[in-house]
Amino acid sequence: MIRAVLFDLDNTLVDFLRMKTTSVDAAVSAMIDAGLPMKKTNALKILWELYDDYGIEYGEILQQFLRKVLGRVDYKILAAGIIAYRRVKAGFLEPYPHVIPTLLRLKEKGYLLGVVSDAPRMRAWLRLAAMKISDFFDVVVTLDDSGKQKPDPTSYSIALKKLGVKPDEAVFVGDNTNRDIAGAKKLGMTTVLAKYGEWSKPGKNAKKPDYGITDIARLLDIVEGLK
Amino acid sequence: MIRAVLFDLDNTLVDFLRMKTTSVDAAVSAMIDAGLPMKKTNALKILWELYDDYGIEYGEILQQFLRKVLGRVDYKILAAGIIAYRRVKAGFLEPYPHVIPTLLRLKEKGYLLGVVSDAPRMRAWLRLAAMKISDFFDVVVTLDDSGKQKPDPTSYSIALKKLGVKPDEAVFVGDNTNRDIAGAKKLGMTTVLAKYGEWSKPGKNAKKPDYGITDIARLLDIVEGLK
Repeated sequence: MIRAVLFDLDNTLVDFLRMKTTSVDAAVSAMIDAGLPMKKTNALKILWELYDDYGIEYGEILQQFLRKVLGRVDYKILAAGIIAYRRVKAGFLEPYPHVIPTLLRLKEKGYLLGVVSDAPRMRAWLRLAAMKISDFFDVVVTLDDSGKQKPDPTSYSIALKKLGVKPDEAVFVGDNTNRDIAGAKKLGMTTVLAKYGEWSKPGKNAKKPDYGITDIARLLDIVEGLK
Repeated sequence: MIRAVLFDLDNTLVDFLRMKTTSVDAAVSAMIDAGLPMKKTNALKILWELYDDYGIEYGEILQQFLRKVLGRVDYKILAAGIIAYRRVKAGFLEPYPHVIPTLLRLKEKGYLLGVVSDAPRMRAWLRLAAMKISDFFDVVVTLDDSGKQKPDPTSYSIALKKLGVKPDEAVFVGDNTNRDIAGAKKLGMTTVLAKYGEWSKPGKNAKKPDYGITDIARLLDIVEGLK
């Protein structure tokens, strides 16, 4: 008997990577327009290397970038980059197609819904608010709530406990086999791999998900079929 | 012989107060929509009192507000407020009517242009970038560059020195008599009071500006008349 559906956030509910690449692209163009003396391809290469070093959620990446390529922070160039980044980000923070109707149908059927994300708390909530889907979720567990990243079971367990649901009464939906799926499987949840976004092909030794979906709308049939 | 025109930023080039009041209004509505159990008028009153205490540029005002009224930060409510605030702010960060053509005409005539602002450096540059007017200015001096607020002469002096211009060769345009006008007058600059925005009526003992304008487009005639 399935009672709850838990979701990863980035690249499962929101097309995070598209938002990030488009925003970074806009930021680099704007910085060049503001006087950054570099070729765009070269600037993008260095910027993505910095994201690899500092992490994709690092908030002062453009400052680091300017220190690296100019030896100092030029505030005219920095401000142009930040404004362009924010404008594009605001436009691209959209849920994948069929996310909202699917969440709505699941709520109508009485399922509890949750988010289990490795994003920092403030950023996870900002993304939910920007997409106007905060209200759908009965629980939201972020990196700051658990202190542990998936596949560690802590975040999942916090979410299940708050909902009063056992692992075998819950479905987990995520795009990353080694993190989302592996962790949920370890606890005994039913697992669904989101293959409509930036999902990574699982390696040979990866845990197989119970289901794979290329459209989140398919989730409803899967969950209802498990009843 | 006038060679340079220096401008205050907030409420002189950008309609800062309109942006702020509209953004704060949107943030409060969104927080109530996200579950804040308060009347809007009451929430707005408390929030503006906090701005009085913490300063209009304080960046974590919604966190402080939630701590005050709920005893804790509710991230769902906070995120809804921040997203609404940012969206409205992005739309309202516009120069006053005739700012861009006036700056352009002044540049065409060969005048050096500058900004002297009491805003923090990053915020001043973000506002210039958002309005797409950074390129017009030969010098931008912010609170972080001088460490002093107007009417202290430090910021004005830094700007004039960078431009290589004497005070009597410069015009200063600002909305605040006691700060913008008083400081510029002390140094011997020609002063223009921007009366088209949120200007404050000067007190009895206030220094009188040399000119008052209700449309920034009038500036061109004044500056050309001083040649």
